[in-house]
Amino acid sequence: MIEICEVGPRDGLQNECKLIPTAQKVELIHRLIDAGIRNIEAVSFVNPKVVPQMADAEEVLSQLPKDLGVRYGGLVLSRSGLERALKTDVEFLHVVTTTSDSFNLKNVKRTVNDSVTELTPVIKEGIQSDRKIVGVLGTAFGCPFEGEVQLAHVLQVAEKFLEAGCSELTLADTTGMANPAQVQNVVNAFFSTFGPDLTLGLHFHNTRGLGLANTLAGYQAGVKKFDSSIAGLGGCPFAPKAVGNVCTEDMVNMFHGMKIETNANLEKLVETSKWMEEVMGRSLDGMLIKAGIA
Amino acid sequence: MIEICEVGPRDGLQNECKLIPTAQKVELIHRLIDAGIRNIEAVSFVNPKVVPQMADAEEVLSQLPKDLGVRYGGLVLSRSGLERALKTDVEFLHVVTTTSDSFNLKNVKRTVNDSVTELTPVIKEGIQSDRKIVGVLGTAFGCPFEGEVQLAHVLQVAEKFLEAGCSELTLADTTGMANPAQVQNVVNAFFSTFGPDLTLGLHFHNTRGLGLANTLAGYQAGVKKFDSSIAGLGGCPFAPKAVGNVCTEDMVNMFHGMKIETNANLEKLVETSKWMEEVMGRSLDGMLIKAGIA
Repeated sequence: MIEICEVGPRDGLQNECKLIPTAQKVELIHRLIDAGIRNIEAVSFVNPKVVPQMADAEEVLSQLPKDLGVRYGGLVLSRSGLERALKTDVEFLHVVTTTSDSFNLKNVKRTVNDSVTELTPVIKEGIQSDRKIVGVLGTAFGCPFEGEVQLAHVLQVAEKFLEAGCSELTLADTTGMANPAQVQNVVNAFFSTFGPDLTLGLHFHNTRGLGLANTLAGYQAGVKKFDSSIAGLGGCPFAPKAVGNVCTEDMVNMFHGMKIETNANLEKLVETSKWMEEVMGRSLDGMLIKAGIA
Repeated sequence: MIEICEVGPRDGLQNECKLIPTAQKVELIHRLIDAGIRNIEAVSFVNPKVVPQMADAEEVLSQLPKDLGVRYGGLVLSRSGLERALKTDVEFLHVVTTTSDSFNLKNVKRTVNDSVTELTPVIKEGIQSDRKIVGVLGTAFGCPFEGEVQLAHVLQVAEKFLEAGCSELTLADTTGMANPAQVQNVVNAFFSTFGPDLTLGLHFHNTRGLGLANTLAGYQAGVKKFDSSIAGLGGCPFAPKAVGNVCTEDMVNMFHGMKIETNANLEKLVETSKWMEEVMGRSLDGMLIKAGIA
């Protein structure tokens, strides 16, 4: 059994150029729940001027169905994000830093150490307000500006996040640089450093076609939780190098073929992807949308 | 070290709608050789009325550079294909049957048994004419009409091909139905049935996005030879469900990231892919063409 964290409503849509109305975001989440998804990164509390697609985070959350056993997460990059999040009822805060100074400076205008220093009390205050915190470490498998990111450095940031109170960690391959051997090395290092009971998720993009191969490698190394995005959302057609997350239904197809349970209904996921293509007004990157279920 | 069998000039182009002149096919093969590829499925001796793209097999072969240590293969589906092949100097005959009756009847209007009966003397006569024979077993991981293809049946066909004199076997996932667990099961069965010295290749399509995950699984199970197609050629835009082979440069990128040698020059492969996009007049499926080398 693996757990899917569906990030289409957040990471997927955030990287799409077309602005999607709140009602359609809510409908997307309804459809995902109907297809069996139980963990959804629904919103991001990021500066609306920087990411207009996420400006309606509070409205999206207020319209989501509760008491269906679905966990909702919201992304938090800074103290101002925390303050917005704590005014909502979102249960999980996905607190993010990257692990490469060059990338972090471009992304949030701070070094990694400065982000960790800012985010440590953010994590603690979130916990005091009865939220659960997933620590997300971006560029964990490489940085497009620096190249290799030292594993020791990624482990240090992880340790600080865990000390601050994160109950889970997610390692993100922000720009699709990971390879399967590296995934297994990094995952092995995390389990040997923090123990086999660490709740560890993996977040891959399909930038270089390795999304599912890396997912397979992570699963083989013991990971049971994977981020993915319905229809592979996130490849803005006006930014030719932007490629979306691992596609949810393609990943579910792989796991079901391997007789590994996901709790998802593949037919309903593919229907949702086709609906998503209508919403976006273009064909999306997922393969099963075109090929059909075998 | 893994060996790439580049099938772009054959399986890739065969599934493209746009007819490519002989000179450009020859240039493609020159470029592939310059990029370090040493095993190329160059042509198919199939009925030109059925597959016009392959009608110039003899001309292509006659124009290829010799004595560069490159092995060239030509596809043979029938006795008439053998007769054409033996009039050329092609060294390797890739003798193909599928392993599903429904598929084989549609593909070559014969049952699998009838194909094996016809191809057994074809293999023997090829060997008598000093050619080496690769037996290719299509639909080895599933049939779009029948669903599951019994592994025992695939092994039976393989045994007959080996008895007839094939020096290598390739298992082909003709319509992209394989999954990584199945690949490992099938490969394990082949090595345990025919011994660890069997030269076994794998041929995947990326129809459902699993091409590289299946390649990884095959590698983990001990396979060292993989078919792939430059730029992921083979997804004819007028046949929306047609998806090409595993993309050569994306596969090389994966293996190089894992510190596994391929003998290929990744930069030159990507250049060749970009040139191929110009030749085809459209963007192709490979991911590295768009994303660049990390």
